[in-house]
Amino acid sequence: MHSELPKIEACFSPSEFHQYEKGFELIVVIDVLRATSAICAAIENGVKGIIPVDSVEDARAYLKKGYLAAAEREGQIVEGFPMGNSPISFLNPKLQGETIVLTTTNGTKAIKIAENKETVVIGSLNNLQSLTEWLIRQERNTLILASGWKDKFNLEDTICAGAIIDGVLESRKFASKEDSSVAAKFIYRSAKENIFSYLKASSHRRRLRKLNLNADVNFCLTPNNLTAIPILKDGILVPLQEVENTVET
Amino acid sequence: MHSELPKIEACFSPSEFHQYEKGFELIVVIDVLRATSAICAAIENGVKGIIPVDSVEDARAYLKKGYLAAAEREGQIVEGFPMGNSPISFLNPKLQGETIVLTTTNGTKAIKIAENKETVVIGSLNNLQSLTEWLIRQERNTLILASGWKDKFNLEDTICAGAIIDGVLESRKFASKEDSSVAAKFIYRSAKENIFSYLKASSHRRRLRKLNLNADVNFCLTPNNLTAIPILKDGILVPLQEVENTVET
Repeated sequence: MHSELPKIEACFSPSEFHQYEKGFELIVVIDVLRATSAICAAIENGVKGIIPVDSVEDARAYLKKGYLAAAEREGQIVEGFPMGNSPISFLNPKLQGETIVLTTTNGTKAIKIAENKETVVIGSLNNLQSLTEWLIRQERNTLILASGWKDKFNLEDTICAGAIIDGVLESRKFASKEDSSVAAKFIYRSAKENIFSYLKASSHRRRLRKLNLNADVNFCLTPNNLTAIPILKDGILVPLQEVENTVET
Repeated sequence: MHSELPKIEACFSPSEFHQYEKGFELIVVIDVLRATSAICAAIENGVKGIIPVDSVEDARAYLKKGYLAAAEREGQIVEGFPMGNSPISFLNPKLQGETIVLTTTNGTKAIKIAENKETVVIGSLNNLQSLTEWLIRQERNTLILASGWKDKFNLEDTICAGAIIDGVLESRKFASKEDSSVAAKFIYRSAKENIFSYLKASSHRRRLRKLNLNADVNFCLTPNNLTAIPILKDGILVPLQEVENTVET
């Protein structure tokens, strides 16, 4: 008999994290529309680091100290900030080498909830394949934390969680036991042929459509257009290589 | 333009009820394995009423007063009680006309959380069709509360919620806006051809299999083998007709 396989599980919202986190020191935070897609885009673009903060007030304090800061609430850029959480805006070459403070409605909150764990990485549909391959190599208990919408279940994060779980389980080196993980996998499988049409019914998709953010939505729902894996190091999201190189030296 | 349609939505667990319940005075409580299936079976069998209570202690107090009381925890009958929550045991003709006190791990907790709402009815796969038809006739905002497993999402309750939502939406007299409802509907649609095999992966199904409760599971997962709709009246679950007759007089 082989020893027990590491687990890969999904938690649908930050409000449920306490019910799932026991035994997991590797957390993947997801907020497909749009925070974690934006963070992946930024790191791939060469942004030096993203500092996630909970509140608009905290972000404003950084802004006053001269930091570049981005703030989004309810899908819109908060007044007084140069940027929100549009992934396309984070692809601007002028941002290369910069450190950017970021606060968003759901995504940064989820990152902060997980921040005391040993390893926190950022997932999206954009970095799906590279993240899945990396997770398989770790062979560690892995919990995917969906940011949801104001602590509620959401469809796009669940599809992304299901995609990661489906890919990781294919390696046959992991197991899933939670019903949430089984459901996420099945939702992904019924959605994967046409994620756009599947998400027509999504509440946040409707919210963003009203705000004329279709280009952002298209970017966020395109799998594997990025390979960067952002990882939390001393409270700052940096490229994974930076941490892995540090470990080797 | 027609006026806004009444809503039919799903809430995945009692711990999330506060995030969904605003604007809903008609609640359907579901605990497919096995509490609400057992309650439907009991009422169909002619049991006079079921008194749901939160704790084993409360149930024991009723037992001492001479009540018939049933108690289940972790899938098993609690020591000192004559019954647990096996739906098959509630079909015993000797129970006709009796009032039975009931406490279970998840289902009775969900009923208690909803009890201050105007209307609380009991759903299961067993009474799916009669319940769906009745809900359509009400044309009221309807929230389906899944009992889950210890406040976590579970698969069988979500399938049942999705089945009710799918049926109610077919009437074109209702709308769903929550992502949880959309997901439940899609999960039901991928599961409906073979609920048994779909639930092979369910955590609670595994739990019950270990306890040799396959006959119960078969009963609970058989749609439309009952027509009774239990409804909460003054803290006691009674047949729907009793309340509707009262309203008419």
